Amino acid sequence: MIVDNALYHQGKRVQLGDADDQSLGWARVPCDPGDFQWVGIHDPSPDELELIARTFDLHPLAVEDAGDSHQRPKLERYGDTLFLVLKTLWYVDEEDAVETGEINLFVGKDFVVTVRHGHGIDLAKARRDLEHRAQVLEHGPMAVLYAICDRVVDEYEKVGQELEMDVDEVEESVFSEARTNDSNRIYVLKREIAEVRRAVMPLREPMRKFAMGVDERITVETATYFRDVADHLQRVSEVIDSLDVLLSTAFDAHLARISVQQNEDMRKISAGAALIVVPTLVAGIYGMNFDHMPELHWRLGYPFALLLMAAIAGGLFTWFKKSGWL
Amino acid sequence: MIVDNALYHQGKRVQLGDADDQSLGWARVPCDPGDFQWVGIHDPSPDELELIARTFDLHPLAVEDAGDSHQRPKLERYGDTLFLVLKTLWYVDEEDAVETGEINLFVGKDFVVTVRHGHGIDLAKARRDLEHRAQVLEHGPMAVLYAICDRVVDEYEKVGQELEMDVDEVEESVFSEARTNDSNRIYVLKREIAEVRRAVMPLREPMRKFAMGVDERITVETATYFRDVADHLQRVSEVIDSLDVLLSTAFDAHLARISVQQNEDMRKISAGAALIVVPTLVAGIYGMNFDHMPELHWRLGYPFALLLMAAIAGGLFTWFKKSGWL
Amino acid sequence: MIVDNALYHQGKRVQLGDADDQSLGWARVPCDPGDFQWVGIHDPSPDELELIARTFDLHPLAVEDAGDSHQRPKLERYGDTLFLVLKTLWYVDEEDAVETGEINLFVGKDFVVTVRHGHGIDLAKARRDLEHRAQVLEHGPMAVLYAICDRVVDEYEKVGQELEMDVDEVEESVFSEARTNDSNRIYVLKREIAEVRRAVMPLREPMRKFAMGVDERITVETATYFRDVADHLQRVSEVIDSLDVLLSTAFDAHLARISVQQNEDMRKISAGAALIVVPTLVAGIYGMNFDHMPELHWRLGYPFALLLMAAIAGGLFTWFKKSGWL
Amino acid sequence: MIVDNALYHQGKRVQLGDADDQSLGWARVPCDPGDFQWVGIHDPSPDELELIARTFDLHPLAVEDAGDSHQRPKLERYGDTLFLVLKTLWYVDEEDAVETGEINLFVGKDFVVTVRHGHGIDLAKARRDLEHRAQVLEHGPMAVLYAICDRVVDEYEKVGQELEMDVDEVEESVFSEARTNDSNRIYVLKREIAEVRRAVMPLREPMRKFAMGVDERITVETATYFRDVADHLQRVSEVIDSLDVLLSTAFDAHLARISVQQNEDMRKISAGAALIVVPTLVAGIYGMNFDHMPELHWRLGYPFALLLMAAIAGGLFTWFKKSGWL
Amino acid sequence: MIVDNALYHQGKRVQLGDADDQSLGWARVPCDPGDFQWVGIHDPSPDELELIARTFDLHPLAVEDAGDSHQRPKLERYGDTLFLVLKTLWYVDEEDAVETGEINLFVGKDFVVTVRHGHGIDLAKARRDLEHRAQVLEHGPMAVLYAICDRVVDEYEKVGQELEMDVDEVEESVFSEARTNDSNRIYVLKREIAEVRRAVMPLREPMRKFAMGVDERITVETATYFRDVADHLQRVSEVIDSLDVLLSTAFDAHLARISVQQNEDMRKISAGAALIVVPTLVAGIYGMNFDHMPELHWRLGYPFALLLMAAIAGGLFTWFKKSGWL
Repeated sequence: MIVDNALYHQGKRVQLGDADDQSLGWARVPCDPGDFQWVGIHDPSPDELELIARTFDLHPLAVEDAGDSHQRPKLERYGDTLFLVLKTLWYVDEEDAVETGEINLFVGKDFVVTVRHGHGIDLAKARRDLEHRAQVLEHGPMAVLYAICDRVVDEYEKVGQELEMDVDEVEESVFSEARTNDSNRIYVLKREIAEVRRAVMPLREPMRKFAMGVDERITVETATYFRDVADHLQRVSEVIDSLDVLLSTAFDAHLARISVQQNEDMRKISAGAALIVVPTLVAGIYGMNFDHMPELHWRLGYPFALLLMAAIAGGLFTWFKKSGWL
Repeated sequence: MIVDNALYHQGKRVQLGDADDQSLGWARVPCDPGDFQWVGIHDPSPDELELIARTFDLHPLAVEDAGDSHQRPKLERYGDTLFLVLKTLWYVDEEDAVETGEINLFVGKDFVVTVRHGHGIDLAKARRDLEHRAQVLEHGPMAVLYAICDRVVDEYEKVGQELEMDVDEVEESVFSEARTNDSNRIYVLKREIAEVRRAVMPLREPMRKFAMGVDERITVETATYFRDVADHLQRVSEVIDSLDVLLSTAFDAHLARISVQQNEDMRKISAGAALIVVPTLVAGIYGMNFDHMPELHWRLGYPFALLLMAAIAGGLFTWFKKSGWL
Repeated sequence: MIVDNALYHQGKRVQLGDADDQSLGWARVPCDPGDFQWVGIHDPSPDELELIARTFDLHPLAVEDAGDSHQRPKLERYGDTLFLVLKTLWYVDEEDAVETGEINLFVGKDFVVTVRHGHGIDLAKARRDLEHRAQVLEHGPMAVLYAICDRVVDEYEKVGQELEMDVDEVEESVFSEARTNDSNRIYVLKREIAEVRRAVMPLREPMRKFAMGVDERITVETATYFRDVADHLQRVSEVIDSLDVLLSTAFDAHLARISVQQNEDMRKISAGAALIVVPTLVAGIYGMNFDHMPELHWRLGYPFALLLMAAIAGGLFTWFKKSGWL
Repeated sequence: MIVDNALYHQGKRVQLGDADDQSLGWARVPCDPGDFQWVGIHDPSPDELELIARTFDLHPLAVEDAGDSHQRPKLERYGDTLFLVLKTLWYVDEEDAVETGEINLFVGKDFVVTVRHGHGIDLAKARRDLEHRAQVLEHGPMAVLYAICDRVVDEYEKVGQELEMDVDEVEESVFSEARTNDSNRIYVLKREIAEVRRAVMPLREPMRKFAMGVDERITVETATYFRDVADHLQRVSEVIDSLDVLLSTAFDAHLARISVQQNEDMRKISAGAALIVVPTLVAGIYGMNFDHMPELHWRLGYPFALLLMAAIAGGLFTWFKKSGWL
Repeated sequence: MIVDNALYHQGKRVQLGDADDQSLGWARVPCDPGDFQWVGIHDPSPDELELIARTFDLHPLAVEDAGDSHQRPKLERYGDTLFLVLKTLWYVDEEDAVETGEINLFVGKDFVVTVRHGHGIDLAKARRDLEHRAQVLEHGPMAVLYAICDRVVDEYEKVGQELEMDVDEVEESVFSEARTNDSNRIYVLKREIAEVRRAVMPLREPMRKFAMGVDERITVETATYFRDVADHLQRVSEVIDSLDVLLSTAFDAHLARISVQQNEDMRKISAGAALIVVPTLVAGIYGMNFDHMPELHWRLGYPFALLLMAAIAGGLFTWFKKSGWL
């Protein structure tokens, strides 16, 4: 589905026909040097992809990749056209989970085609924002590329912050007194971190390339901006790496905690058992059938025995409490 | 055993003799510039290999390797002939296991020799498919090389998906309530992942070389296609790596689970023991032989004692239930 | 907030106006070749940053970074201006914790702007010290850069030493006889080491660059000094790495210790139980109702039985003591 | 001790004196261009080494290394002479152990000196084999170098296969039902794998160098053969690496197994205890001294009590069996 | 403190003044081309360092480093002077511990200054040895550098061998039947290996540089000798690495052993408990108060009951022994 399609002249959207529906549909508009056309597509059908490929003369292999929503991030160049695959990430609070989408960008001399799969980033909003910054847009297609990368990486940083908070929670839970089943949670977090890493890591190389200005369309000024994106990406990847290491350490601490708890339980159980078993011995003694057992004939022999048991149990209880076994 | 042997002229199979048996047998056909011959061999005997080596002037070391089905994937160049060893992988559903075969390719200026060991890929079908795509085949021997690599790597991706499903199952099992012996399964999966890695990793370098066009027979257009194969290979290898890491984490969680279960068992056992031991103490008390024990002379002393035991056991049971020990 | 702003001529601070308030406020002073201006800012508001950016023509991306106190250490070059982000570290004894701050440096041809977030290093003192070393200061802005890096890295070394002492304490605790909850402490130390690493590691590359003289303003002599800083940084990073490895090993030893303790506890408990259970058996025996049990009719049968129990318990106690179970 | 010493002319051994003792002793024979002399020494005394060093003008450092049987594999060049240290490996079936020896090769323009320490490879047999392949031997000293490397690496592959079988056995043992002490065996295997790695890894670089033809005496054809050796070496090293990883995983599974067994034992023990403790409670109840306990006066009270105990024990037994505790 | 100071001419010590005190004190002697002066200093005071720095025009940063005994090994070049920091290692048998010292070398065109901290290597002996090898000494300052490096690295190898023996002992202890507290010992060894690594690893790069002849004073012949040192260093570092890995594996085996021992203890304890609990049940049965219990009236009822208990206990004992529980 085509979401929007417009022509930009000197950083400004060119008004076409009536104001209600400004988009060009599937058409390619011949444009003056310096102008460019930006087509936004969402979850395209194979036919739509085919159409757009023919319109902008896109390479079939790139188009095939753009139709598949399980690509890894990458940058490729087919003739004059750059093809960039980006993973979008966002954090779903309700589920404490990271979800992923995909944006494919075809960046030619005088056009940009953005193909979005799933949600994650509001490209329409990104376009509107850009349309208000003519001084950026007038740098042409590479400015669109930069704006989208910047926005995607900003989302990565937000996801990184959410994961940092999740790891903090896990940490607290691991070192709390409560018996918590943290291994499940740590596993899920590790899985999500792996997913974020799969989005972030392969993108570093393309951003570095843009930052070093590998393309003749990247001016020194533009490269500076891409360097900023590359730097943020680097920061995210370092955060992710250190979270991963922290989780491993937290898991080890969790394992140690389980062992310690088992030990404490065992000691509590043993102390509890002693409280029962020792009085049982006393009862056994007074259940012996000797002819001459003076206590048996005491008037208060029975209460004495019960008190003896209680006293022993009480003494043990105090002792165990003091030595930390109960 | 020779499976097929045919001459291709401008991407089309040249009809030779009667239609039933089009293959050339062991013969080498002199061909015009741009034409090429494609010989397909399956599980060859040493003599057959010797014959084919003499026919196409193949290097003895490469022929020795081609006769051995336990090679590692590699690309070598002997004079004008490229020698590529590929591992084929396929997933056997019945056994949840990955099996491996091997394809050796000799790619000369005007010939391709494919030597297949074991199963895994239907090269005959690959040939029939290619014969329907004359515009690919007319690129000559390198097109055959590409087509086979593409097909082999597609199989890798399928295997990767199957392993992903297996890992998902293991994950579910590890975090389920049931007591499952996951360590065995995790071990087997790790072994299979190691096997896939041994097939995938060494192939990346050759594909990268083709993608960068190291051979004069690789045109820019062909290189683009090999880049696509290299990219898929990279995707498989990343999937495999992340599955391996996930399995290690799942194994750690499995270990933690065993410890937690032991702890739970110990608490259950202790609680159960308490239900028996405390009434035993009561019985011991009323088994004492004191002269003055009023309860013993009560009419309902015995039922009272039994009720007392039951009440104590019931009380303990409720308490343990509430505190999660039973 | 501007902390200080002064002009330096041949390594000496230029007296401006009255002696009490020598600083220039926000103004930029036109200076002769070889002179330079040094502005020190602390926790600036966005407006102040904006002002200073306009005054010294700083790049908006660098200014944006300088306003954010969660940057990673990095060196960037915007035209003639170097932009260096440094993490400051200091050890808070009361909390056994490492805290972090940030210094951003803009180093131009004839100016230095230092933007400090949080505490950690007394830049005012650093400035006063430098002002007493005219022979250093006369090397211009790069001398200021060196002096600050040197001081920051010195702090890293102090933090490294404090952490070494903490690790020594943990070590002692792990191998002491006392039951200590070391896993929590090890975790916290690992977290702090990770934090120090995040400050130290990314700084190595910039220091190496300075040491190799990548900037035309770095003379051979200056490079020697930066090489010294780079070497100290390397030393800190090696200390940090080896502490991390030691902590992991200590954690493993801690785990082993927990297991050994559990084993010892179990043996102690079992020995203790035997001391009760065996006399209980004796009591049970003399509680049997056989017609002919000679002991029952002995005069001293009862004391004999009690002595028997005590003797058995005493014998067991001695035996368990000797074999290390109690 | 000199084992053999002969002159080779166009790939054929030159007959010298009587047929029984063809070797030259310690003498150096002046040879025509293209001819070369091959001296084989075994466990030489320092004096013998000194003698041979003077005869062939070998570098003292290399000679010192050649006299020491604890070198690491390496390739060095002293003037025109190559010095290669090889570790020989062989598997001793009786002890399931890998043993090591050492071969030092001095390869000059017109001579080869082989110094062997320990056993491992029958160099005399290698020489006889080579003497039957004149077309190889006529390539001169480098052919001897190739032949020995090829043979040594073939032995590595055999050792690798033996270790694979050992790992398979360990694997089977770990996952068998029997209680086996696998950690010792895994440790020993890991130690042996480390030993193999120390022989294999440092040799890869020299073989790669030969394969790329770094020496002017290595023709393109010879390089192809060394490439084959390098490839086999790579295969061995990959096998070794993957065995090492497998062993680590098997060890983890072994640890998990110990925990699971402990759990099973604990449950078995607890179930067994219940079979005793519950009847003890019944006995305790009928040992109480209440005046009114109807069962006590039943005729068949005693058998009834015994049956009750047996029934309870039987019931528990069935229940534990069904729930997998016994 | 100056230990020795002498002038060398063509590899021979120049006689100065009376034979008893040949050293020059703090003086610098003007020397002919090819001659050089060698000053040996031990634990210098800051003033002595200052003096020597002025005499030989040493760089203040290097002098500062040379006064500090906690440097990491490194090679630096200040103008024409090389500055090398070496860690000396030696093994103290009484404490089974590795100790460290430090040697700083300043190597100029016509002088060598050696600054030693702590013990470890007898530089005076090294000097005397060198003075007997005029053909080495006449190569000038680089020969002194080589001789010291060679000696230091020889010490590393000895330390490596001692550590190998320690690891062998630990290994034996881990796999012995005795209950040993190996984790402490493994930890200490790991710490020492880390210390050795910190001395060895950073030295490899400087030695490699010397071996490749980066300095114009290093002739091809000298480089050969440094290559030998570099090779020995490489050997030490490989030994150290493999010991570290072995210790980790031994620690894992130690952990497994603790678990197995706990399991064995638990089974022993349970079996022991059964020997008591089952007779207790028998005693309980004959303590029941049924009117009709024929055994109670048997003449030999009591001995029968005792024998029954003993028989049951004996039977259980035999059974447990046979099944390995006791």
